[in-house]
Amino acid sequence: MDYKFSDRISSLKPSLIREILKNTSGSDTIPFSAGNPAPESFPVSDMKKIANSIFDSASTQALQYGISEGYSPLRDALKDRMKKKFNCGADFDDLIVVSGGQQGIELACKVLCNEGDTVICENPSFIGAENAFRSYNVNLVGVELENDGINIEKLEQALKTEKNVKILYLIPTFQNPMGVTTSLEKRKAVYALAKKYSVIIIEDNPYGDLRFEGEEVPVIKSLDTEGLVLYCGSFSKILSAGIRVGYVLAPNDIIQKMVVAKQVSDVHTNLFFQMVAHRFMTEYDLEGHIEKIRALYRHKAGLMISSLEKAFGGRAEFTRPQGGLFLWCTLPENVPMLDFCKKTSANKVAVVPGIAFCASPEDKCNSFRMNYSTPSDEQIVGGVEILGKVLESY
Amino acid sequence: MDYKFSDRISSLKPSLIREILKNTSGSDTIPFSAGNPAPESFPVSDMKKIANSIFDSASTQALQYGISEGYSPLRDALKDRMKKKFNCGADFDDLIVVSGGQQGIELACKVLCNEGDTVICENPSFIGAENAFRSYNVNLVGVELENDGINIEKLEQALKTEKNVKILYLIPTFQNPMGVTTSLEKRKAVYALAKKYSVIIIEDNPYGDLRFEGEEVPVIKSLDTEGLVLYCGSFSKILSAGIRVGYVLAPNDIIQKMVVAKQVSDVHTNLFFQMVAHRFMTEYDLEGHIEKIRALYRHKAGLMISSLEKAFGGRAEFTRPQGGLFLWCTLPENVPMLDFCKKTSANKVAVVPGIAFCASPEDKCNSFRMNYSTPSDEQIVGGVEILGKVLESY
Repeated sequence: MDYKFSDRISSLKPSLIREILKNTSGSDTIPFSAGNPAPESFPVSDMKKIANSIFDSASTQALQYGISEGYSPLRDALKDRMKKKFNCGADFDDLIVVSGGQQGIELACKVLCNEGDTVICENPSFIGAENAFRSYNVNLVGVELENDGINIEKLEQALKTEKNVKILYLIPTFQNPMGVTTSLEKRKAVYALAKKYSVIIIEDNPYGDLRFEGEEVPVIKSLDTEGLVLYCGSFSKILSAGIRVGYVLAPNDIIQKMVVAKQVSDVHTNLFFQMVAHRFMTEYDLEGHIEKIRALYRHKAGLMISSLEKAFGGRAEFTRPQGGLFLWCTLPENVPMLDFCKKTSANKVAVVPGIAFCASPEDKCNSFRMNYSTPSDEQIVGGVEILGKVLESY
Repeated sequence: MDYKFSDRISSLKPSLIREILKNTSGSDTIPFSAGNPAPESFPVSDMKKIANSIFDSASTQALQYGISEGYSPLRDALKDRMKKKFNCGADFDDLIVVSGGQQGIELACKVLCNEGDTVICENPSFIGAENAFRSYNVNLVGVELENDGINIEKLEQALKTEKNVKILYLIPTFQNPMGVTTSLEKRKAVYALAKKYSVIIIEDNPYGDLRFEGEEVPVIKSLDTEGLVLYCGSFSKILSAGIRVGYVLAPNDIIQKMVVAKQVSDVHTNLFFQMVAHRFMTEYDLEGHIEKIRALYRHKAGLMISSLEKAFGGRAEFTRPQGGLFLWCTLPENVPMLDFCKKTSANKVAVVPGIAFCASPEDKCNSFRMNYSTPSDEQIVGGVEILGKVLESY
């Protein structure tokens, strides 16, 4: 049979990262291309204890259907933490548990955008979010991301000229892929523009707990006096990525629609691990655990940066993240990025070509993304050396 | 702020079941309205053993990101079981693990239908599926469901006259809400029509393992020589509903698109419980466990049927399911269904008004759905007695 697919899905290709990962999935490849948290960041023995206690005392609840909003004690604990740690959550806000931050973004687009509406994102941005938007056939518009956040003039220009702008999608803290953090000044400017043009900000903050250097910057949601910000959080980088548990804090009117959309999407998020996350938050030392992960990534990022300084000798620039999982290298003009990435790949070092993160395939990009949470220390040192040699070959 | 939502979500109301459940959520209500598997059907101690073994020997894999297709050993085990038990799976087929059968339906609609395309379903049908279709703004058309399956003449009429029919959604075995099973003859007729009109059949089969009486009827997917059938299966009724693990067996071209759609929806299904399901299938006695559930529901359905015969004394009709979780009562014409359901609810017995399952709010329906897997034996006997007294009051 000649299958006919929906317009929205026909245009969506499997991600370039995915394709690259397929070609470098051998164990002899150095994985700078991944976005995986370090395996040593999973609190395995505590989670095992919690799992046993759930099987012993709450198995009927944990294995039965739950409600689409999420496990109430977890929702309460998350609201409480958002208030205390991030100064977020007004009377008009509510919280829904989702199956990873990715689902929060997808459901938000489903309930807020008609086909043809505009979503503005930083350029470059997170592929998973960009593809979620594309899967609803929206007009995706990228606005230049600078080292201190999105370009405010160009953002206002886009808000003025693009049709039916519904969502402004941002990763203000330790951005994926660039590793940069939006300044407080720009956060305020972005919020003022969202208010002026009646646009919902999706503040995606999966890495916000992972600062290993510098001063905390208030999240945009903490500035939200008008109910304009939908905040996506996740346990993927502080507990486990495979359990698929995240959350959205947003105005109750939006949350209610997301609950309806979630009900038809997967009914609810795996209840057993919602309960594990809740008990880990309330009976174990989540903040202490996060502190350990920060120390781990401080070390790994530092090692990658010092290795890059040595290997590149100033010939290629790169960002110095103060947290998160990624940094962004920009090649000199005479070095063609895709050619460079193919060569590193042939030398068993996988990085992601920057074009994969661009809002439009016509965008120009001479950068690539590197991840330091997945590779071992030896892989970081050895892999960066190889990158240096490939760069020298031009 | 005055929020603007997408057209697709604005029309979607929280389900009527949900609203009824909210009003009868007290522990003193007899829950004939639910769709929950019996808590005694969860193999708690085996799952606990498996969970411990995963924490001990495979925690890094179980807690890390996985691939969107699903855990490969589980996919292989499921393909194998579908072949052996249901004679399904051609060379052109593949299998994706999804977050419950619900996600299989939602992703299928997302990849197959543009807004305005037609989806045909049995009338009445499963609310969760109907709402998933509505959430993509399709033209949902219900065709009368009879005691041996959908009305074939009316189905062909709809296929001929409705615009861009893309999906025919059926629950051929122990249908929700009616509890009836489509005959082999009608299955063949439906398949022939799907072929004639180039329409994809979604065969939703969450209850297919739960036959407690009568002869097995081949699933429609086993007739699929042309690649027209997308089969949705689930662990919800044979292992645990809260873990949200299901699967779709369908032509590879469709599965590939669903993988892309799943990637942007929740990246992948909770990996830990994909591994639990796999080990339960391969290292424990899944078929023996299912046999126990069948015996349990044989008993509960029998008890409900004999109680209804006594309480209604022939004044109201009801279906005699040979498996699954539900039966369907039809009131005499002089008894108004919504009024009846309100009265039973006031008497602390919750049933679901049949109109909730109808494809169009204009449909007429004088029936209600009853579930026998959730209530205890005492609740079945006591609750049906109350229903009888309410019926006598007319």
